Amino acid sequence: MIAGVGLTGTGTGGAFIAQGAVALGGGRILWAGPEADLPEDYAGYARIAGEGRLLTPAFIDCHTHIVHGGHRALEFGMRLEGASYEEVARAGGGIVSTVKATRGADVDSLVAQALPRLDALLAEGVSCVEVKSGYGLDLETELRMLRAARALAAARPVRIRTTFLGAHAVPVEYQGRADAYIDTVCIPALRAAHAEGLVDAVDGFCEGIAFDTSQIARVFDAARELGLPVKLHAEQLSHIGGTALAARYGALSVDHVEYATDADAALLAASGTVAVLLPGAFYAIRETQMPPVAAFRAHGVPMALATDCNPGSSPLTSLLLAMNMGCTLFRLTPDEALRGVTTHAARALGLTDTGLIASGMRADLALWSVETPAELAYRFGFNPLHARIFGGPDQ
Amino acid sequence: MIAGVGLTGTGTGGAFIAQGAVALGGGRILWAGPEADLPEDYAGYARIAGEGRLLTPAFIDCHTHIVHGGHRALEFGMRLEGASYEEVARAGGGIVSTVKATRGADVDSLVAQALPRLDALLAEGVSCVEVKSGYGLDLETELRMLRAARALAAARPVRIRTTFLGAHAVPVEYQGRADAYIDTVCIPALRAAHAEGLVDAVDGFCEGIAFDTSQIARVFDAARELGLPVKLHAEQLSHIGGTALAARYGALSVDHVEYATDADAALLAASGTVAVLLPGAFYAIRETQMPPVAAFRAHGVPMALATDCNPGSSPLTSLLLAMNMGCTLFRLTPDEALRGVTTHAARALGLTDTGLIASGMRADLALWSVETPAELAYRFGFNPLHARIFGGPDQ
Ligand SMILES: [Zn+2]
Ligand SMILES: [Zn+2]
Repeated sequence: MIAGVGLTGTGTGGAFIAQGAVALGGGRILWAGPEADLPEDYAGYARIAGEGRLLTPAFIDCHTHIVHGGHRALEFGMRLEGASYEEVARAGGGIVSTVKATRGADVDSLVAQALPRLDALLAEGVSCVEVKSGYGLDLETELRMLRAARALAAARPVRIRTTFLGAHAVPVEYQGRADAYIDTVCIPALRAAHAEGLVDAVDGFCEGIAFDTSQIARVFDAARELGLPVKLHAEQLSHIGGTALAARYGALSVDHVEYATDADAALLAASGTVAVLLPGAFYAIRETQMPPVAAFRAHGVPMALATDCNPGSSPLTSLLLAMNMGCTLFRLTPDEALRGVTTHAARALGLTDTGLIASGMRADLALWSVETPAELAYRFGFNPLHARIFGGPDQ
Repeated sequence: MIAGVGLTGTGTGGAFIAQGAVALGGGRILWAGPEADLPEDYAGYARIAGEGRLLTPAFIDCHTHIVHGGHRALEFGMRLEGASYEEVARAGGGIVSTVKATRGADVDSLVAQALPRLDALLAEGVSCVEVKSGYGLDLETELRMLRAARALAAARPVRIRTTFLGAHAVPVEYQGRADAYIDTVCIPALRAAHAEGLVDAVDGFCEGIAFDTSQIARVFDAARELGLPVKLHAEQLSHIGGTALAARYGALSVDHVEYATDADAALLAASGTVAVLLPGAFYAIRETQMPPVAAFRAHGVPMALATDCNPGSSPLTSLLLAMNMGCTLFRLTPDEALRGVTTHAARALGLTDTGLIASGMRADLALWSVETPAELAYRFGFNPLHARIFGGPDQ
């Protein structure tokens, strides 16, 4: 039992309750509402005083590449010292360096390297993290990344959702042969990973520098055959039709979507697909094209926010900072930012048992030392978490 | 004694030593250099293994408004929901609301409100924080803010440098009478604060919406009379000559300086004044005019970085994030960012005993779980601090 100020609600909505209470038991929320209405049934429950703090659903990071080998700090420095793209590449930089470091790491090493990043997320009230493969680009390493992702859930009190992202980049050994990579490496690796129970969803990078819509469609067809939901990195750097393709496949989410159009927003609304906004990558690569937030609002497309934690374009491990950047850079409201890391993030992962304070939901909650929800997005570089509750106080 | 990787150096320089060691005693650094050269004298000292971690000077936040009443999260939300400037003002927003909350808070309350912000800084290896007045705008509250700032140094293991900023804004009761405010409130308050030993430096806000150069000059004359160094919020939103004025008074620093010119940079170099860059405010108010970093480099103007922690334009409490923003938004190199929160930040406060790993300096150090200095600026929303050393291991 926690009494205090709460954000609660039903369905995809949710309302702020000034003096709320929740009753927890068996890892679930049994009841939520105004404290004054708390049913007699829960009168005997042990009480934890919220003391006026804000209770929210625990946060969900619905788009990360948190499992990977190495870092790219030297490349970050080289670029700021004026090195050209070619100089960085000659020094072994770019995604190639992350693929190399990831291929060279065993499961234990991948887990050990991911844990500090995961711990940073958990320290901010995160209960659930999506983790993608995609730096192996060969069958064995793609599977190893997903095994490492699953191992994170054993190492820490957190729920992990895995996403197969074999179609992340064309590896050097398949340069100029993207079709062959998709057909002879990516899709067989997906089938092998699924057979091992390692895949919760399937993703791709649909972009001029990665894969086109027909290549992604083949991966999505394979996913459909296996009964797996899909999502897509789409329209990040240009508009090549990934959003429309994803909507056609009923994707859980399209991610980045800076170059999506009003017509895309209409398709997403019709397919019930979430737009996952990634302001950390927008900030770090100094993108200037803003995602069409007004169109998403107008069409009723749910918007989520995530860290996109990755070593190249978004070495970000704070959902609170993603919320602030969502507001500051994309002009989301603080309320949209909060739904973006809770209710809509759950939906982007196809989860219906979390992301909302309502009876029947998992007892994954975060208690914050703030007076109002807006404070979570307003500050940056500040963590007001008082307590994280994972699976209720009884677990 | 700490053995490990270190950043060390002498004078205003400093070099990275791949396998360094430092000897500490009496709150000071006794020796610093390559571990292989460690003199016999320190052979018997207790050893703390750095285990390959990075040792840097402790960080210094040389520009904050960390002591203040209330927050402005509701205003942040209103603006994002489309409220006009007038609507925000009618709802009691803007600096007026912070002045009201600060005037209504006693010393204990100001300290209690500042401590979570201070703790966030200390958790990232900060040893020294500058704290400005400027939300009182009457004699009693300006003094109370500075007393609260001094009290922070008793509440936490940290060094506090106070700055009198009576010339921050014209209070409502002096609207349209800025000269009268300077002469009958600001300067008398400065003298009273100095008499109580509350002032380490004197600052002002030189801007169209605040005070002009002749008003600031009167405050600087009063500071000179009292033997106090000066600094200035200058050329943040427009170019009105604050930088040249500050250089004429031999200011410790000019801060913000987005609109400073190449000619200003030459004046700063001649006066030995530090340019304090505040990327958090630049980011939060979505400024587009970048400070003249190339001119500062060309003229040899030392650049510092700070949080500008304040409730309106920069609710930022992370120097690591200020470093990342200095690189990402202002194109500083990671090395410049590191000097900006150590060596050059010390200089912006007129401190010669900190900000550098060199013998004779205070034993204020930070030990980081990173391989290279660039990693400190590369990630955002991540804190790799392993240990903060304040006044050496023997205190
Ligand atoms: Zn991604
Ligand atoms: Zn300031």
